[in-house]
Amino acid sequence: MNLPKQVMLREVGPRDGLQAEKAFLPTEEKIELINALSKTGLCYIEATSFVHPKAIPQLADAEELLSRIHRNPEVTYGVMVPNPKGAQRAVSSKVDDMMVFFSASETHNLKNVRMTVEQSLQNIQDVLDIAVKADIPVSAIIATSFGCPFEGEISENRLIDLVGRLNDMGIMDIYFGDTTGMANPKQVHNLSTKLLSSFPESRFGLHFHNTRGAGSANILAGLQAGVTRFDGSIAGLGGCPFAPGATGNVSTEDIVHMMEAMGIKTGIDLKALISCARKVQEYIGRELPGQVMKAGICPCSGGLKRYAA
Amino acid sequence: MNLPKQVMLREVGPRDGLQAEKAFLPTEEKIELINALSKTGLCYIEATSFVHPKAIPQLADAEELLSRIHRNPEVTYGVMVPNPKGAQRAVSSKVDDMMVFFSASETHNLKNVRMTVEQSLQNIQDVLDIAVKADIPVSAIIATSFGCPFEGEISENRLIDLVGRLNDMGIMDIYFGDTTGMANPKQVHNLSTKLLSSFPESRFGLHFHNTRGAGSANILAGLQAGVTRFDGSIAGLGGCPFAPGATGNVSTEDIVHMMEAMGIKTGIDLKALISCARKVQEYIGRELPGQVMKAGICPCSGGLKRYAA
Repeated sequence: MNLPKQVMLREVGPRDGLQAEKAFLPTEEKIELINALSKTGLCYIEATSFVHPKAIPQLADAEELLSRIHRNPEVTYGVMVPNPKGAQRAVSSKVDDMMVFFSASETHNLKNVRMTVEQSLQNIQDVLDIAVKADIPVSAIIATSFGCPFEGEISENRLIDLVGRLNDMGIMDIYFGDTTGMANPKQVHNLSTKLLSSFPESRFGLHFHNTRGAGSANILAGLQAGVTRFDGSIAGLGGCPFAPGATGNVSTEDIVHMMEAMGIKTGIDLKALISCARKVQEYIGRELPGQVMKAGICPCSGGLKRYAA
Repeated sequence: MNLPKQVMLREVGPRDGLQAEKAFLPTEEKIELINALSKTGLCYIEATSFVHPKAIPQLADAEELLSRIHRNPEVTYGVMVPNPKGAQRAVSSKVDDMMVFFSASETHNLKNVRMTVEQSLQNIQDVLDIAVKADIPVSAIIATSFGCPFEGEISENRLIDLVGRLNDMGIMDIYFGDTTGMANPKQVHNLSTKLLSSFPESRFGLHFHNTRGAGSANILAGLQAGVTRFDGSIAGLGGCPFAPGATGNVSTEDIVHMMEAMGIKTGIDLKALISCARKVQEYIGRELPGQVMKAGICPCSGGLKRYAA
């Protein structure tokens, strides 16, 4: 089984995960969570979003949060930026990375941000202009890359075309989102192999949801294809707007557990990460999908051996 | 990605899954469930167990259940048989397959059945003698094959030795159980490859638990190694006696969904299977771990396309 020796994980719980929660999590608790996550060895945390506060009230405290978290210089604090207005706010808040997004599916993009994909790409160019001037990197996520609940299959050629457009703008950090959990491992392997060989200068990542139970298998398929960047959400925080009760993002600590068990280095202290997961579950006040925080670390495989006794 | 064209799945929910439930499920509902499962295309159902009723009160209705279910001639109804007494009961109830079990780990076996592994193998020989006389096949499951919560790692050589012992008795259908969710995909791939090449005449199967979130990845690894037999529990019914709150068996319908999405034939009607999963959740009266029954079928991949519109 061909696997990479090490990977880079992004923690998206504080934005992508929390965004699905209706009850407002106090800013103080968000800050405590991000500060705790910052000490686990994670090198990237999606901290919040600069969408309009009315669109997502949960993240209306973006500025306050970014001014009050204790920034670990080893950590990149990324923020979701939907438009030039958000980019200005991101510059003022001195974020380390602007995360832009759009959907591979026209229908999903229209429903999600009321723009055509073409308009979204123009909007991203406008964000990029601001980011470049402020010397802030930009990474992109292409939602519904593995299937759209409205349009169904997304063709490989469509994704190749969109990656080419982003590369032309100068965006080389590109994540493929399985927004509603439609990916299967064979598809992930084929698509990842194709994209990695077609765009050797891009840095590709995979962003999976466990909505149909195949999250860990999809990650394994990505690893086997040579992908080394993955997103996860602490404790599996999040959900799926298209399927009430269904799971959202894969759980970061479960991913780390599986990777370290196979000897893949994540650079993360799993015990500290599990503490964060339990903290989130406490804050949210109901059972969250993460498994390892309930079962504990299996102490006898690969990189997990260091947690024994 | 090298994958088999078709697989054989065993449904273990009515025994392995239910066994973890404290509240007694009325015999009537068990029968309804097994009758419904029998119409999904599943070719093997673990119906109940002939353990002593005091040991597992949930399955005390084994005889009544077996006499009242409507047996589909296309389905093998297997029953867990712990000892010669159980084997006699299994013969009287005309089961189609006796499932015997023991642990690869001495400590786990002692704690679980108060016998050494050597004593368990003798006990299995006694069960086998009864089964052979009654012309009933026997399949075995080796628990803690991928790690033991007490002893840690289980060596490949240990498993090879145990498989050899079973083969010598004439037991060729052997399943490896990841009893407490300690397996990782690399280990599964290595072990499966080794076992398949060492024992070409055995029929090996894998029995995974999702206790640490890697269930679907472990199945993918098994498929890639060439394993074509897997156990699942409808709706993910079950649990882990060593970790309260943690998940047990992988969910059958989630496995079927992932396999069919990759074009692997399971012979199962996924819609009918999801109805069974929802029925179980209703019977049990709380949310169960199966994901696809909440999110619905993704209609645009491989064998799932037939469910579109």
